[in-house]
Amino acid sequence: MNFSSRKIEQAVEEISRLPGIGKKTALRLALYLLRRPSLQTEALSAALMDLRNNTTFCKECHTISDTETCSICLSPKREKSILCVVEDVRDVMAIENTGGYNGVYHVLGGLISPMDGVGPSDLTIVSLIDKLQTGEISELVFALNTTMEGDTTNFYLYRKIKDFNIKLTTIARGIAVGDELEFADEVTLGRSIQHRIPYEQSLSQ
Amino acid sequence: MNFSSRKIEQAVEEISRLPGIGKKTALRLALYLLRRPSLQTEALSAALMDLRNNTTFCKECHTISDTETCSICLSPKREKSILCVVEDVRDVMAIENTGGYNGVYHVLGGLISPMDGVGPSDLTIVSLIDKLQTGEISELVFALNTTMEGDTTNFYLYRKIKDFNIKLTTIARGIAVGDELEFADEVTLGRSIQHRIPYEQSLSQ
Repeated sequence: MNFSSRKIEQAVEEISRLPGIGKKTALRLALYLLRRPSLQTEALSAALMDLRNNTTFCKECHTISDTETCSICLSPKREKSILCVVEDVRDVMAIENTGGYNGVYHVLGGLISPMDGVGPSDLTIVSLIDKLQTGEISELVFALNTTMEGDTTNFYLYRKIKDFNIKLTTIARGIAVGDELEFADEVTLGRSIQHRIPYEQSLSQ
Repeated sequence: MNFSSRKIEQAVEEISRLPGIGKKTALRLALYLLRRPSLQTEALSAALMDLRNNTTFCKECHTISDTETCSICLSPKREKSILCVVEDVRDVMAIENTGGYNGVYHVLGGLISPMDGVGPSDLTIVSLIDKLQTGEISELVFALNTTMEGDTTNFYLYRKIKDFNIKLTTIARGIAVGDELEFADEVTLGRSIQHRIPYEQSLSQ
């Protein structure tokens, strides 16, 4: 592209390094900021720098946190003996949004994926095993995606963990609430039928 | 959304104020920056601030520029008597990318649009008329979009300008190079036929 301003060119270059944002979108965003009060650009820049420099990972569960231990791990209302294993912080947010989980989390920071060069040592698996060895955990809930990487990681963890005296569970898979049976894929519908639950149980939710 | 970190929440809020970026995309971008070296966030923030604080509008053509007069207006190779009227700086870039225009520009900064509360006084029309009154302009090329707003602005300018002794032209509309006739819309194909050009002329491009 032919820019009349070197500064626009630099801004477009930096913005377009973000994932999913090309040069045209970057230019649109840059021109938008130019039309807005400079206060907005200042707030954006400051928020990004603050995020990058002043956040850390919770030393308990490894989620992103402003403090050494995150608010979930610190909360006295949380059931510390139930541990939900998730891939990243977005999954923590998704589960928190449901309001239906009262335990704590363990963020792996990724999934085992030899294709992408991610092995068990790149994840927070050692820290997970350490937690289990304290004997304070009674239930471990697997909440990883059902991709090949997710299944691999589940199985790897299962083999490491199965000799501990801990209840292992996994989140229920089935047809989404409101979805129609005829349009569901076979694997999902198959699991829904296989893992059917007592009718009374479904009323309590 | 339920954020475990107040700083993530702030960053997501600021990023999602950009046009076309929702909360989910903003979160994805924020988490991406957290995974990258902090140098990248610094470069992005600095480029945005630099763009917002250190660019200005060229006093001749009103395009975005790092200097008081932009490089196009300053260039001695440019034909200063041909003036192309465009909506905004993106159009300048688009035309510059073709390499097929040797005149200078006049950026209106928008189009007349009563629905959006944009009137003639919000655009750089006074400055355009001033330029024409110097008598140094021999041709004015309209290159506004063929939307209702573009046509309105074209017509408004036409009425202001028609008494000056200046050649008025508009960019050619027609079927794009490489497009097939059968899929073209009727209005465009109609214009293509109506404004046909001598065959020899098409060979020179």
